[in-house]
Amino acid sequence: MKINHIAIVVEDVNAALTFWRDALGLPLQHTERNDGEAVEIAFLPMEGHQGEIELIAPITPDSGVAKYLAKKGAGLHHICLEVPDVAAKLEELKSKGIELINDSAKTRPDGTLYAFVHPKSTGGVLLELYQLPKSG
Amino acid sequence: MKINHIAIVVEDVNAALTFWRDALGLPLQHTERNDGEAVEIAFLPMEGHQGEIELIAPITPDSGVAKYLAKKGAGLHHICLEVPDVAAKLEELKSKGIELINDSAKTRPDGTLYAFVHPKSTGGVLLELYQLPKSG
Repeated sequence: MKINHIAIVVEDVNAALTFWRDALGLPLQHTERNDGEAVEIAFLPMEGHQGEIELIAPITPDSGVAKYLAKKGAGLHHICLEVPDVAAKLEELKSKGIELINDSAKTRPDGTLYAFVHPKSTGGVLLELYQLPKSG
Repeated sequence: MKINHIAIVVEDVNAALTFWRDALGLPLQHTERNDGEAVEIAFLPMEGHQGEIELIAPITPDSGVAKYLAKKGAGLHHICLEVPDVAAKLEELKSKGIELINDSAKTRPDGTLYAFVHPKSTGGVLLELYQLPKSG
């Protein structure tokens, strides 16, 4: 397994970039607007793309991320680990009584398969699992 | 920069290992007891040691981690990034008005230099910076 990303929820992506990019010096790969989830995301990869920091801000006041921010405040939101076969891993976790948020994997537009494990089963951590597309 | 570790505060290391090691399948490198900080830590490295998960539990009711756990509950605690020169990075951050928890780096028994950046300046994230020993 590898760390794919660490997701941080912030009020405003540009304000957060003044620390993570401008002061700390991480490279900004790109930002994107995801209208489906009503968020803006900035992607800041590590050396050799061994994991990245994602800064996530709500773009509407009623999105899931906006509600999270209002309730919990800015900070670490979830971590994502890459696994070779997410369907097999989900079956294994279910067989061991682990509570999943997604019983089966969903697919991102780029072909990445993903699913979330519930914080109840992980010690309070929202955990995303990724299976990257074969070409990736 | 590289991700060195993601630190998760839990009630009990062995209980947390039933998920992270036994169900998810991460290898447990070792556990250690740090009496100075009154914590037990389990280290679960990724493939090729590209970052690791650290599970941290208090071993006394009055430690800093015990108080954090009582106030915030179990979950993501901090992330740690490796930098080539932590003293230079701290000076740079200070010159840009970033609030540090440690104004200068401290030294771990293995020679690793480390310092924490205050969540006020990062968008709510407790950020540790590591400079690994030259031999590492």
